Amino acid sequence: MPRIVTAHSNPLIKSVRALRDKKGRREQGAFIAEGLRILTDARSRGRLPAILLFTAESLRHPLAAALIAETEAAGGDAVETTPEILVKTTGKDNAQGVLGVFRIPDTSLARIDRAAAPLWIVAQALRDPGNLGTILRTGDAVGAGGLILLDDCADPFSVEAVRASMGAVFTQSLATARWDEFLPWLRAGDGQLVATSLQASVDYQQPRYARPCFLLFGNEQAGLPADYAAACDLQVRMPMLGSADSLNAAVATAVMAYEVVNQWRRAG
Amino acid sequence: MPRIVTAHSNPLIKSVRALRDKKGRREQGAFIAEGLRILTDARSRGRLPAILLFTAESLRHPLAAALIAETEAAGGDAVETTPEILVKTTGKDNAQGVLGVFRIPDTSLARIDRAAAPLWIVAQALRDPGNLGTILRTGDAVGAGGLILLDDCADPFSVEAVRASMGAVFTQSLATARWDEFLPWLRAGDGQLVATSLQASVDYQQPRYARPCFLLFGNEQAGLPADYAAACDLQVRMPMLGSADSLNAAVATAVMAYEVVNQWRRAG
Repeated sequence: MPRIVTAHSNPLIKSVRALRDKKGRREQGAFIAEGLRILTDARSRGRLPAILLFTAESLRHPLAAALIAETEAAGGDAVETTPEILVKTTGKDNAQGVLGVFRIPDTSLARIDRAAAPLWIVAQALRDPGNLGTILRTGDAVGAGGLILLDDCADPFSVEAVRASMGAVFTQSLATARWDEFLPWLRAGDGQLVATSLQASVDYQQPRYARPCFLLFGNEQAGLPADYAAACDLQVRMPMLGSADSLNAAVATAVMAYEVVNQWRRAG
Repeated sequence: MPRIVTAHSNPLIKSVRALRDKKGRREQGAFIAEGLRILTDARSRGRLPAILLFTAESLRHPLAAALIAETEAAGGDAVETTPEILVKTTGKDNAQGVLGVFRIPDTSLARIDRAAAPLWIVAQALRDPGNLGTILRTGDAVGAGGLILLDDCADPFSVEAVRASMGAVFTQSLATARWDEFLPWLRAGDGQLVATSLQASVDYQQPRYARPCFLLFGNEQAGLPADYAAACDLQVRMPMLGSADSLNAAVATAVMAYEVVNQWRRAG
């Protein structure tokens, strides 16, 4: 039977609230995902929360009831709480009234199975958690295997990134690595490394992309370091027809990724 | 000679700070744009601020000095202030130390000259100001004429939207209209109206798009109302290869817009 917790000072509530900060996530090795839809998607992939917070109101929904039952059956902690506590915990109105705490998976590069998907997205020094989550969401949509984060990126397990991913944090593999670690790993197997760059002279629709294709994108402001770009098999640019000289990072990733999968769709 | 203002309680500072809220923008008919790069882009398009706030530090940059001189020559008010006041005014670190206040342009549909560009983006009930700004930025990149906002959308002149637009708020035409006003306006001239829809059976790469092309996108959660979609000349869908059933709104806009311009680039 689920417990009921109504005090903001409750240790469990305090430990969940601490997961809003990177420090808390690192100490506990856990992150927050909110909303019935995302938690149900996670469940359908065999990912159940270690802790599930829910409101009395949410029990009316059969999917929430099923989530609670399965969480408890799997040894997780299902805890009823108030809407006020849920809102305070995530800093956002939580109309669906469910919040899950999940273990952060191992994000070492060695866990990435490049043969599992034809396309991988690689982001370097990506700073905006909303962009990061949106890139995960796009990765899912284009059938990518996952996202490899190079150097100092935003935390993919922040509340904002998880929210923007719309559940893709559970469907996409995630790895974090330094460039000096990534490049030898990449070259130890198959893989075409493609950089998008404002300086490139090759239009992004010109090359034929090879599987597995690794699409590399640089920091939102600075772009990709020149030596990273030089180490790529291809450097391509997207046309800029107006006065802007760049696209939003998540937008550039999506435009590039759709070009690659569109080529493969045509080739059959 | 620029004035110097160092008090948070100064009426000018208070009126600028009020522009962070929609109410203040409506009352004053003005909005805020920050950063030397965006203000310089605006200036190169003949758009100078009515009020320019800057820090002593920013004067070291020749572009800032030029901006101050031109603002004053055009009858604007250039005011030196402290970094603390600038930060408080926009709620964000403002490393470049310049902030402009611009008049909100007339956004009536009648001001849109559809012959001025081959592509126009139309968004219905778009709620996220960051998405809105990112769509403006993409619109500039693909050579769109502007963005037409239908029904209740986020405010394109909010600080967050202007920031995400990266200056495109000055290069893209903006109109706001009700659907009942937009559709007769559209049908009174040339224009192919294209909806992206999860329900559509036609792949987005299949049709040939005609100039001027109006790309219509619905609300982030609810998508496009069925009757709006039915009134379009074409309904198309983008492939979803994973478990996600939709893309971020700004991402979907960009993927679709690049398909259209790529077709036209091939056709020459």
